[in-house]
Amino acid sequence: MSEQKENMSRRDFLAGTGGFAAGAAVGAALGGGVFNLFSAQAAENAAPPSPWKYVKLDPEVVRKKGYDLYHNGGCMYGAAAAIITSLQEKVGYPYTMLPLDAYRYGAGGAGGWGTLCGAPNGAAAAMSLVLPNADIGKVVSELMGWYSEASLPTTKHDSYAKFTNQVQSVAGNPLCHASVSNWCAASKKKENSDERKNRCAKVTGDTAAQAVVLLNAYFDKTFAPVFKISAESESCYNCHVTRMSNTLTKMDCTPCHPNAHKK
Amino acid sequence: MSEQKENMSRRDFLAGTGGFAAGAAVGAALGGGVFNLFSAQAAENAAPPSPWKYVKLDPEVVRKKGYDLYHNGGCMYGAAAAIITSLQEKVGYPYTMLPLDAYRYGAGGAGGWGTLCGAPNGAAAAMSLVLPNADIGKVVSELMGWYSEASLPTTKHDSYAKFTNQVQSVAGNPLCHASVSNWCAASKKKENSDERKNRCAKVTGDTAAQAVVLLNAYFDKTFAPVFKISAESESCYNCHVTRMSNTLTKMDCTPCHPNAHKK
Repeated sequence: MSEQKENMSRRDFLAGTGGFAAGAAVGAALGGGVFNLFSAQAAENAAPPSPWKYVKLDPEVVRKKGYDLYHNGGCMYGAAAAIITSLQEKVGYPYTMLPLDAYRYGAGGAGGWGTLCGAPNGAAAAMSLVLPNADIGKVVSELMGWYSEASLPTTKHDSYAKFTNQVQSVAGNPLCHASVSNWCAASKKKENSDERKNRCAKVTGDTAAQAVVLLNAYFDKTFAPVFKISAESESCYNCHVTRMSNTLTKMDCTPCHPNAHKK
Repeated sequence: MSEQKENMSRRDFLAGTGGFAAGAAVGAALGGGVFNLFSAQAAENAAPPSPWKYVKLDPEVVRKKGYDLYHNGGCMYGAAAAIITSLQEKVGYPYTMLPLDAYRYGAGGAGGWGTLCGAPNGAAAAMSLVLPNADIGKVVSELMGWYSEASLPTTKHDSYAKFTNQVQSVAGNPLCHASVSNWCAASKKKENSDERKNRCAKVTGDTAAQAVVLLNAYFDKTFAPVFKISAESESCYNCHVTRMSNTLTKMDCTPCHPNAHKK
């Protein structure tokens, strides 16, 4: 091999300039076998189209992973990485190509803004890797509904968590702001307390676990949406969404609009 | 080459079972040059750690891409893909390893829930690929602030957009629900209208462009946050965030809590 070939970069090779010719020469020299391998690798320089292969995961394993990984990079990172590292272990490539640090942005409801809780944001990001395009919205919506109505955190982390038997609360919607505020109100703990952070670590694990429950059901063909807009909000929706079509949401109306149509 | 070697999969090779031995044999036969190449490729079977290489992008190119790509997969997809496909073109690998369809989940504020608008969600996801961990929250927060206060959509799409000179509105926060509701109120158009969808395509492009403005400034070392919590909300924050620490948000308070502390 010449010095030039020895130092050929993968990109040079795949760009088909000097590299391709060198690769072709190697392939020819070996009667085609290695060249076939090179070609397959060139194709893998682009992501395989999603959905990627899913294998059923154990929600309890993912729950603990989410709890643990929260401490590395926050709620979105924790929930996404709990699922993605599980699939890295079970499936490997192409899940190994995802830079998990890029999920840190969702912490505190995206840059600390208190919008979408990072746990469902990260879990949905991971779910979307394995779902067909046509079903992403449907299954993700169900996770949002579950998050809105669930009493969180669960006690399923209590064998390893820093704080056990923590007060549970219901967020009422998938917003970090509502989720954290309601828990602080119920627990009388501060937002900047260790207890609150531990609660969010648990919520991260709980949400990742629920995402896996939904995915397992989806791939078992037993997925059945159960979320329903509350009866109270349904009367709002009948006008504002259906008849007037002047808004877009599935969140409950009254927490932010307690006095609508009241004088 | 034996039949076994010819059919060796990439994963077999990289797993270091039969494949590794075969690769080593090939490398040895060629005096090391090809084996070095194989080793480099094995390392690239895992994502390089982020931040990934960023090259300055033209916000106007990204703005139009965001508009166009919205029509393929919604707001989060459009904003993320506008930036990521630009970096695929300018940098190539590893941006080519990201499955863009996995950003569809953010449409309509995540599965249609009206939470975080998909445009800043997708733009933040892309920004997070190129920012050091310690700065992700800071720069993403600034995008959220810009989105909350900007009059959108801009008219910068008018040379190619379906609808021109559309009414502008201010979302007041980064939520899809507020953004769409406020625009429907200002424009008197319906949420399910073509006009609203076209407006959201423009907002997708505008948000991706602003993300690029922020990234370019960051890498030029001229990034300077300008978002400030409104004076009205600051008085709420002084108690609820700073003193009592019973909530987490940077959103304006009064749109959802118009009657706080009023009898």
